[in-house]
Amino acid sequence: MVEPWQDTTLSAHVRAADLLARMTTEEKTAQLSSVWLGAEPAAGQAVDVAPGQHEYAARSAALDTLLPYGLGHLTRPFGTVPVEPAEGAARLTALQRTIRAGNRFGLPALAHEECLTGFTAWRATVFPTPLAWGATFDPALITEMARAIGTSMRAVGIHQGLAPVLDVVRDPRWGRTEEAIGEDPYLVGTIGTAYVRGLEAAGIVATLKHFAAYSASRAARNHAPASLGPRELADVILPPFEMAVRDGRARCVMPAYNDIDGLPAHAHAGLLTQLLREEWEFTGTVVSDYYGVSLLEEAHRVVDGEGGAARLALAAGVDVELPAARCFSPADPLPEELLDRAALRVLTQKCDLGLLDADWDPATGDASVDLDPPHLRELARQVAEESVTLLANGAGVLPLSDGTRIALLGPLAHEQAAMLGCYTFPRHVGVHHPDLPTGVEVPTLAEALRTELPGSVFGDDPAAADVCLAVVGDRSGLFGRGSSGEGCDAEDLHLPYGQAELLDAAMASGKPVVIVVLSGRPYALGRWAERAAAVVQAFFPGQEGGPAVAGVLSGRVDPSGRLPVGVPRSPGGQPAPYLAPPLGRHGFPSTVDPTPLYPFGHGLSYTTFTWDTPQCDAPELATDGETTLRLTVRNAGDRPGTEVVQLYLHDPVGTVARPEVRLVGYARVPLDAGASAEVHATFPADLAAYTGADERRVVEPGALELRVAASSAHVHHTVPLTLTGPVREVGHERRMRCEMRVK
Amino acid sequence: MVEPWQDTTLSAHVRAADLLARMTTEEKTAQLSSVWLGAEPAAGQAVDVAPGQHEYAARSAALDTLLPYGLGHLTRPFGTVPVEPAEGAARLTALQRTIRAGNRFGLPALAHEECLTGFTAWRATVFPTPLAWGATFDPALITEMARAIGTSMRAVGIHQGLAPVLDVVRDPRWGRTEEAIGEDPYLVGTIGTAYVRGLEAAGIVATLKHFAAYSASRAARNHAPASLGPRELADVILPPFEMAVRDGRARCVMPAYNDIDGLPAHAHAGLLTQLLREEWEFTGTVVSDYYGVSLLEEAHRVVDGEGGAARLALAAGVDVELPAARCFSPADPLPEELLDRAALRVLTQKCDLGLLDADWDPATGDASVDLDPPHLRELARQVAEESVTLLANGAGVLPLSDGTRIALLGPLAHEQAAMLGCYTFPRHVGVHHPDLPTGVEVPTLAEALRTELPGSVFGDDPAAADVCLAVVGDRSGLFGRGSSGEGCDAEDLHLPYGQAELLDAAMASGKPVVIVVLSGRPYALGRWAERAAAVVQAFFPGQEGGPAVAGVLSGRVDPSGRLPVGVPRSPGGQPAPYLAPPLGRHGFPSTVDPTPLYPFGHGLSYTTFTWDTPQCDAPELATDGETTLRLTVRNAGDRPGTEVVQLYLHDPVGTVARPEVRLVGYARVPLDAGASAEVHATFPADLAAYTGADERRVVEPGALELRVAASSAHVHHTVPLTLTGPVREVGHERRMRCEMRVK
Repeated sequence: MVEPWQDTTLSAHVRAADLLARMTTEEKTAQLSSVWLGAEPAAGQAVDVAPGQHEYAARSAALDTLLPYGLGHLTRPFGTVPVEPAEGAARLTALQRTIRAGNRFGLPALAHEECLTGFTAWRATVFPTPLAWGATFDPALITEMARAIGTSMRAVGIHQGLAPVLDVVRDPRWGRTEEAIGEDPYLVGTIGTAYVRGLEAAGIVATLKHFAAYSASRAARNHAPASLGPRELADVILPPFEMAVRDGRARCVMPAYNDIDGLPAHAHAGLLTQLLREEWEFTGTVVSDYYGVSLLEEAHRVVDGEGGAARLALAAGVDVELPAARCFSPADPLPEELLDRAALRVLTQKCDLGLLDADWDPATGDASVDLDPPHLRELARQVAEESVTLLANGAGVLPLSDGTRIALLGPLAHEQAAMLGCYTFPRHVGVHHPDLPTGVEVPTLAEALRTELPGSVFGDDPAAADVCLAVVGDRSGLFGRGSSGEGCDAEDLHLPYGQAELLDAAMASGKPVVIVVLSGRPYALGRWAERAAAVVQAFFPGQEGGPAVAGVLSGRVDPSGRLPVGVPRSPGGQPAPYLAPPLGRHGFPSTVDPTPLYPFGHGLSYTTFTWDTPQCDAPELATDGETTLRLTVRNAGDRPGTEVVQLYLHDPVGTVARPEVRLVGYARVPLDAGASAEVHATFPADLAAYTGADERRVVEPGALELRVAASSAHVHHTVPLTLTGPVREVGHERRMRCEMRVK
Repeated sequence: MVEPWQDTTLSAHVRAADLLARMTTEEKTAQLSSVWLGAEPAAGQAVDVAPGQHEYAARSAALDTLLPYGLGHLTRPFGTVPVEPAEGAARLTALQRTIRAGNRFGLPALAHEECLTGFTAWRATVFPTPLAWGATFDPALITEMARAIGTSMRAVGIHQGLAPVLDVVRDPRWGRTEEAIGEDPYLVGTIGTAYVRGLEAAGIVATLKHFAAYSASRAARNHAPASLGPRELADVILPPFEMAVRDGRARCVMPAYNDIDGLPAHAHAGLLTQLLREEWEFTGTVVSDYYGVSLLEEAHRVVDGEGGAARLALAAGVDVELPAARCFSPADPLPEELLDRAALRVLTQKCDLGLLDADWDPATGDASVDLDPPHLRELARQVAEESVTLLANGAGVLPLSDGTRIALLGPLAHEQAAMLGCYTFPRHVGVHHPDLPTGVEVPTLAEALRTELPGSVFGDDPAAADVCLAVVGDRSGLFGRGSSGEGCDAEDLHLPYGQAELLDAAMASGKPVVIVVLSGRPYALGRWAERAAAVVQAFFPGQEGGPAVAGVLSGRVDPSGRLPVGVPRSPGGQPAPYLAPPLGRHGFPSTVDPTPLYPFGHGLSYTTFTWDTPQCDAPELATDGETTLRLTVRNAGDRPGTEVVQLYLHDPVGTVARPEVRLVGYARVPLDAGASAEVHATFPADLAAYTGADERRVVEPGALELRVAASSAHVHHTVPLTLTGPVREVGHERRMRCEMRVK
């Protein structure tokens, strides 16, 4: 007999409600719980955990205890200890069978994994870090990448990925800057939503994190309080989440560790319920960040006791406690109404995923499963290539011709670590298994260059070279094991590991020096900017990063990346986000000038482009209208290249101080030598909305400027607009995108 | 015939209202205006002005234009160009006669001056900077100082002083840190209110500035936006203002330059009207910061045009435009109702000051006026002596005995600048008059040491010395003319002027090194902490600072200063205020540990003290109750000394993340060798109030801890308390002080 909850002709909500009505309190609570196998004390230092995690694991509900009641989630079945993909899939299948057999409804668990830079599993393709996605300014490619990642995860039994990170970079000293997409909410929103669409298209639940303002933690210290008011929250921090919920249809949100003006995100009903569910109409699940419920009690101290923490989080809108059930426990019962609310959401999501279907098959993968197939590597290469950013080439030393004698300086030139972000399997888990092979091919820059420039001679003596390639940047890791990555915050933006001295020495050689930065955050380069022959920036570009950077250096690849975060001149003076009103961007009346060395959106090509004066079909538009710009861009050089047309909004007068400029549109324009293209940008007045003095989000009549630009500081043309009509309050139905077409 | 507005038997309000009713729009507007004589372009670079000020002056209303209508304020009659005090007084008398003669009511102007470190006039006593007041932990002395300063100002015709600065230090990179009192709102509130009481007792209108959150400007850059939410504003930034309004009866408030979450303080009706006037019942005037009204248009861009800026500021609650009338102009009439509101406040204040009285005598001062008499110098010396803080003396090298051979290192040992803050006349104005004598005696540290230790030999060669005195720190100035002071922000807390190398070299000598820091902000000393024989900190201690520091070094003065701001270990990683919840004070889970090298409240003596276990008369108290602690402190050494008993509140659980500890009481306890004293502290439950998750300020029942401590990190005794009864919402009538008595 098929019960209503198994009936695939009914809606997921009805099925879930039917199932919920049959459940005991213990069974409901179990659906809000997870188990992290392999992270217990007996398993040793399996993952790069925080101190206290083993103690945490020891106090969490064990699988055996939960089995009779079912299990909500399975935590990181592939990203905890190294496992051959086929074996991992087989184990997961067996585990799901055990779980199903354990509870009276035969329900499996929802298996979640990290996928920040690809599937965080051994032998899975390692993609560039999100900051590199930002540098591509190419949402379509990021969607394709995410769909491919999701498909490979789904093939081995994973249902949910804990990505993307939608934190808008506010202070790049933050170790997790590498996990973020950039410092502009429009870029973060569009690229992040592109990723969500890809992952969700593959059937994987995307998880938006960290909701919200984690990146605004004081002095960029991990978990520190975020001081900010409602307007900055609404206009800078939240828009990417709103876009990814509304346009991306993401099905999960993860709260941030930090507090906002005292209120921890995991206890923030205003964010997790009023905004997310009531205003944005989000219907998915909210899963805690790992240990986030416990931290309410242990670190934020906003509640006493584990049960209190559970009730507070649940009441605010957290549905599932990760990585394991410690506070959510039937021993200290949760209010039935809240329990039902959360369990219904989890069951509905499981139903969506097919996990309530009678014919759901736990069998996943087979002996031939390949998590690093050619088409994924190709996508990794393409993202890497599009992300590499040429910051300076004043001396025209790049591209390097084959045969050039090259002094290759800096240990990172010879390290795979220079390519890999902190959520890649090798840096996240592999570091605890020193004898384990990397699992995928990760050519170092030195290796890639030898392939790229077979006629060149490489050494480490500038005297014997035509040019110095000085490779500097980060090694990523967790909690102090690297110079970038989660818990690896910086006091300032000095290059780590004494690499400033390396650059000083290279400069002293008198040979032209090309600085190549492979890093997880921007570093201050002002000390060398005048003397460097060229500067190339790549943010952890993944396993194909070596060939991609080498391809740019050789000229095989025309550099087309654009900076998703500004590169500062000086190491101190942070935070200095580009998104600031005039008094946040000036030097005077301060001796400290935050103007970046290379601004947001900056990036050069080996060819040159001309930008015609844009035509605007309606320089006057209503506060609920739109207008279209038409602009011709031409490749004026003799080699193919890609320009990135950027549109910035400048609003001269408002009721509150607002950013001098912010990105409202962009398009990549690939052009053969001599070719031209027409770019159409349809700008809706909604994009001029901001949160005013009375905290309402409004579009106001008056003058505006659209700046058609090659970067936030390099404006080609300014298009004056006038908004007419009444002040218009806009809600969450407003248009959030400027449509750009390239013809 | 005596008009009602001249009738001294009527109330100030009635008199002002009568006068107002007789005034034209032009006359009312003139009362909201000021003139800054000597700052016009023709007067040359009279004061250390911002670029653009001459242009500003040129566009402001001239005295001649305003005379027929009267004049609200006179800007800086003594602090603009050097003038002999008697001559300045005579000029001011003549000017007031001209002003009275010019308008039909015979009204004089209200003359305001700076008085941040004493009267900012040539030949006036230069007191220590406010950070040094904070270090004294001695409100009674600060009241005495302020009364003496006010009396000398009043004697030469000044009515209002533009002090104190009540900004709570949030990031010491801010150049104006030297102008602030400390990083704890209770210390800032009590010391600042003590200053207000003294100034007001002398008949001078005290001006509370900068209202509010200027010190929270992003990355400590002058004028940059302040990102903070309502709770941080209410619990950290505003309490000193509230105390100074309610307890100090200050009669003027000056808004801050910055915006708060987008809303510029000069346009912030929530602060200037709803909070200040409606809740706190403030009845004085609000004067703009210099150019603050113009900045609404020019920098914040929240309004178009000068008239618009005037209307916006006036509507928010700004009454007077300083330093001169540019936006407030009858040419662009202001709404009559707002004009009346502001003019009534100004006239009421003038009436209070006697300026509406028929027999008001503009004659001030005489030929014998002395702005630097012995009793002011003595007070300056006393404040300086109590402010000098001994941070470390592990090697016991201090005090130095006479005859010690001393290598005196560092240019600041020989400079008056090392003693003087940026609002002292010599640094503020004198720098533009290089041939002008300093005007008061300011012994350098070198000079003072020679007097203090006549038998010692001083040189600059460590090899020939028993001990090195390495003197490092700041030169103060405005807008880039110094390393500290208004507009002289720092990117990090490295010692400026290459003085780190000076300390490195001193350490390398192998001789014991005493580090003496004479500065306007704390600097990172972690690099030398283990090697220094002793560390002494003084914040610009004023004209008697040299003898005071020398007195501490020789042991004539027992050091009794306590740090009003923590001294950090590393130069980066800012901001890191001590007032932070647990996640704002930890290292892990960040690699950056903000724990200071020397914490807030820290300071040593040459003697030692024992602290008996405190007795608490009622460990349980109602949420509207109070309790009293009794504690005996004994001088266990063989020389007199002063202990500072500090009381910190730790509240284990609340509805939001709150500071781990905050100061709630303190008392200086001077003790002869072997003597003891009983300290009584009456702690009202009101002091446990905080702004909760729902933004109400409440006292909640539950456990509390009072930590009886020698610094924020050195707790002698912990007294557990339990608050009982209902959650109690408290308003602005709540008790804000812990009464401390020393018996």
